[in-house]
Amino acid sequence: MIKFTIITLFQEALEPYLKSSMMWKATEKGLAKFDFVNLRDFGLGPHKSVDDAPYGGGDGMLLRCEPVFAAIENVKAKDPSAKVILPTPVGEIWTQEIARRFVSDAHYIILCPHYEGYDERILSIVDYKISLGKYVLTGGELPALIIIDSVVRLVPGVLGGETSAEIESFSKGNNLEYPQYTRPEEFRGMRVPDILLSGNHGEIAKWREEHSGTV
Amino acid sequence: MIKFTIITLFQEALEPYLKSSMMWKATEKGLAKFDFVNLRDFGLGPHKSVDDAPYGGGDGMLLRCEPVFAAIENVKAKDPSAKVILPTPVGEIWTQEIARRFVSDAHYIILCPHYEGYDERILSIVDYKISLGKYVLTGGELPALIIIDSVVRLVPGVLGGETSAEIESFSKGNNLEYPQYTRPEEFRGMRVPDILLSGNHGEIAKWREEHSGTV
Repeated sequence: MIKFTIITLFQEALEPYLKSSMMWKATEKGLAKFDFVNLRDFGLGPHKSVDDAPYGGGDGMLLRCEPVFAAIENVKAKDPSAKVILPTPVGEIWTQEIARRFVSDAHYIILCPHYEGYDERILSIVDYKISLGKYVLTGGELPALIIIDSVVRLVPGVLGGETSAEIESFSKGNNLEYPQYTRPEEFRGMRVPDILLSGNHGEIAKWREEHSGTV
Repeated sequence: MIKFTIITLFQEALEPYLKSSMMWKATEKGLAKFDFVNLRDFGLGPHKSVDDAPYGGGDGMLLRCEPVFAAIENVKAKDPSAKVILPTPVGEIWTQEIARRFVSDAHYIILCPHYEGYDERILSIVDYKISLGKYVLTGGELPALIIIDSVVRLVPGVLGGETSAEIESFSKGNNLEYPQYTRPEEFRGMRVPDILLSGNHGEIAKWREEHSGTV
């Protein structure tokens, strides 16, 4: 069973996604497990502070080392094999190929960084730095969900159709899926291509191959 | 005020994110507004069906045209200027530059596609096809949140620090942010670089410039 422990200040924002649809089914089937750790529990001082101003000046507050290391080490004390993932713009760009490599019985700890940054020394306790793309978000929470969603759906048994995961977009190198149509045959003057209604499986396969996109 | 209307089957999975942290603050300040439309309300027949099997065979169920067009047109009847965004692997890759172009008083409708695909004719009612990256997800829900988060945080007044949005990673072309440090000066033998403690703003600016990454 694949396990994810999410270290965040915003459990209430993330948990409902993991309790719906496919992620919920994966949990119910015993194929995945999701836990949360509230970083605030490891905060410093009476206000349980987890961040501080940057040395050298500048806007924003950075995640401090102490609460982050304490939270991670608390999880690792129970499972030393757990690996730490940090969503960060300086990480490796996430792809379907990398998602596939993460499918295993491993335990991943995802640290959701503060929206304004983190102390650089936190990288010393991180196993995988992952970037979701060339855009900035308010925090690491959505990247955490994207990583989890894209990996868990590849766990055998999670998706209904046995082969769905393999034929989908990006699954084979850079091939994008072909155009698809369902009922009705005609909608506001737009018709399903005749070939798809023909029942000729050879011709249909050829048409789909020709109409698959590449990126 | 920027507005997003999200058409989805999983409102309960998404809404908590938009009611927390920065997205909530943006709403409270009257700088952004988020609405939901339940696609199921526009489903067909007694089971309010929104999907069907693909013509020509294959796994999975595709979103049908009728409920999607009806849901979008219901929103547009009240606001004809609303633009439709579809997260899809065949879309333009989302970047900080595109996020910046979406910042305006516009009203965006985001259609969250079914995890197994959609009828190709749905593209005829879409204004922007957006891809979050080269990976597959169970649905368009997380891409919808990523688009919203990355755009709304750029709306003037949403972030606390006035300049934070501009100095952050990717804001200036492909420059990544420099390493940052906060207290303590030493943590488990790892020290903050002396230059950042020097108080010499010219030298600090130079060090940061030299240590900014590029992608």
